[in-house]
Amino acid sequence: MEVHYELPLGGAHLAYRAAEAGHDVVLCDPSFDISEESMERLESAGVELVTDDTAGVEHGEIQILFTPFGHTVKIARELLDDVREGAVLCTTCTCPPIALYHGLEGELRTKREDVGVSSFHPAGIPGAETQDLILVADARSEESGIELASEEQVERCVNLAEDMGYDVYVLDPELISSIGDMSVVLTVRIVQAICNYFSVARICGAPIEMIEEQVEEVLSTMAYLVGRYGLDAFDRMDGKLLLRSLRNMALTEDVERVVDFFERCYVDLLSGDRESMRELSSMMVPPDKLVDRVREIVGEAPVQYARRRFFEERRWGS
Amino acid sequence: MEVHYELPLGGAHLAYRAAEAGHDVVLCDPSFDISEESMERLESAGVELVTDDTAGVEHGEIQILFTPFGHTVKIARELLDDVREGAVLCTTCTCPPIALYHGLEGELRTKREDVGVSSFHPAGIPGAETQDLILVADARSEESGIELASEEQVERCVNLAEDMGYDVYVLDPELISSIGDMSVVLTVRIVQAICNYFSVARICGAPIEMIEEQVEEVLSTMAYLVGRYGLDAFDRMDGKLLLRSLRNMALTEDVERVVDFFERCYVDLLSGDRESMRELSSMMVPPDKLVDRVREIVGEAPVQYARRRFFEERRWGS
Repeated sequence: MEVHYELPLGGAHLAYRAAEAGHDVVLCDPSFDISEESMERLESAGVELVTDDTAGVEHGEIQILFTPFGHTVKIARELLDDVREGAVLCTTCTCPPIALYHGLEGELRTKREDVGVSSFHPAGIPGAETQDLILVADARSEESGIELASEEQVERCVNLAEDMGYDVYVLDPELISSIGDMSVVLTVRIVQAICNYFSVARICGAPIEMIEEQVEEVLSTMAYLVGRYGLDAFDRMDGKLLLRSLRNMALTEDVERVVDFFERCYVDLLSGDRESMRELSSMMVPPDKLVDRVREIVGEAPVQYARRRFFEERRWGS
Repeated sequence: MEVHYELPLGGAHLAYRAAEAGHDVVLCDPSFDISEESMERLESAGVELVTDDTAGVEHGEIQILFTPFGHTVKIARELLDDVREGAVLCTTCTCPPIALYHGLEGELRTKREDVGVSSFHPAGIPGAETQDLILVADARSEESGIELASEEQVERCVNLAEDMGYDVYVLDPELISSIGDMSVVLTVRIVQAICNYFSVARICGAPIEMIEEQVEEVLSTMAYLVGRYGLDAFDRMDGKLLLRSLRNMALTEDVERVVDFFERCYVDLLSGDRESMRELSSMMVPPDKLVDRVREIVGEAPVQYARRRFFEERRWGS
C-alpha cells in the first residue's frame, strides 16, 4: 500500500483536505508531533493550528475527534461545556459514536441538547492511497430508538465529506465499527463463512428458515463464548472434537476442503480437552431476541441501562 | 464417506448397537420404513420393535428421541404422562436439549420432576463410518442456572454411550448444537476467522483486550443482523463498501489474500447499495452483557422469560 507522505496522515490530513475545500478549519493538538514542513503546508492551506483544545471546540460546527484509543469519552466530557452551540461531535476509528453518546448522555439530554453525536469515520488512515470514503453515523439508532443527532447535523457531516472529495456512506450508529474499523477483516470473513454455510446447508436440503436460525445461534454462541472467556475460549476448546464432528459433515468437496484445512492449520491451536470443553458455559439466545422479550415485559428502561453500562465499560473509556 | 449399509442408519443403528452391548432396547417407529432384512437383524440382536410410542416411553430408562425436525417438543409433550418414572429424555440432532426442557418446563417443574432432559447427540449419522462419538448434555446450564437432569441421569447416558463403544463428551446443554449439528461447519470457520483476525490485529499492535472486544462486537452485530433480517441481510449489504474498507486493512500479505479472495468470490453476492446499507438497523451489544445487566436490575425472571419464549418460537416446535 502506497502512502502520500507529503502530509502527516490521520487528523492532519483531514484538516488539510477540509481547508483546501474552502472550509474554515482549526486543528487542535496538545503536542503537534509533526514536521516543520507539514505545519507550514497546513498553515498555507489555511488551517489554524492550536494546542489548546478549548479554542477548537469553541470554533467547529463539526468537531472530528481523532482522539487516542480509550480517551475519547473522557476528553469530550471535559470539553463539553465549551463546545460551540449546535455543534456535532464526530468520532473516528477510536470510538463508536454510540459509545460517545452514552458517555455524554446525561449532559446531551439536559443542558446540551443542542449538541449532536455522529461519526466521520475514514475506514482507513486518511491520506493513505486507498482511503477514499467516510462513514457518517445516522441521526437515529433504529434498534434503541436513540436520537444521537439532528438530521441537519448529519447532513452537515455528509456535505463536508463530499466537499472534501470523499464518497460518503451513512450507516446505523452501531454498524460503523464493524464496517469501518480494523475488525472489518473479521466481518468479511464471517460474511464469507455464512454465505458458504448457506450453500452447504442448501445442498443438504435444509430449509432456509432453519439455516437462518442455525447461523444466528452459532453467532450468538460464539459471541457469548468470547464475551465470557475472551480469546481464552479457544484454548479451552478441543480441536479434535470439532474435527470429529466436522468430518461427519463432509458431504461435499467444498466441506472436505474445510475439514482438510481445519485439520492441517487449526486443530492444534484449539488445545483444550474433554474437561475444559465440559466447563465452557454457553448461551445460544441471540441479542435481538433477548432485547425484544425483555422490553416486552419490563419495558425499555432495563434495556437502555444494560446498553449504557456496556458502552461505559468498554475500551472507549468513560 | 463410506457407510455401513447392512443396517439402517440413525435411530435403528443406535438401537442395534445398544442391544448388541447387552441393553434391553425397544425401538418405536409408527411406520418402520425399513427393509425386512433390517428388521430381522434388529430383532435377532434383541431389539423389540413397536409401532406404539407409548410402549416405548413406558419402557426406557433412557429415551433417545430420533424425532423429525420441528416435532420433538410436541411428541414429547403428548407422551410425557406415560414416561417411565425417573427416565431421561435425550434429544439428538433435531432439537437442542434446552429447547425440549423449556418446551416441557411446566410439567418438569411440577408433576414430572423425576424426568430429566439431556442429549444423545451423534454429531453425525449413526452408522456412518466416521461417526464415533456421542455428545451428552450436562445436568446444569451454567449460564441460566437451570437443572435439566440429575447427575445420575447424565451418568446413565454416558455409561450407555460407552457401553455402545462410543467416545463421549459431556457439554453445556446450549453448546451441543453448535458443536454437533450440521452448523459445526460454520462454527469451525468462525473459529478460524477469529484466530486469523487475532494474529492480524496483533501484528498491527492492538492490545489483546481490544481485540477481544472487537471480536465480540462483530459477532454480536452479525448475530443481530441475521436475527433481524435473516439471510436477506447479505442482500442488503453493499459488497463494494466492505471491499473498500477491507482494502485499507491490507497491511500484511495474509490480509491481502483475504481482500483478493473477497473481491473475486464474494463482493458480487452482497448486492446491496448505499440506501439498503443505510436502512440496516444494528446492535453491537453482546448477549452475555445484556443478560448480566438486565439480571442486575430486574432480576432473573425477565431473562428466563426471554429465553423460554425464544426456545418456544424456534424451529423445534412447541
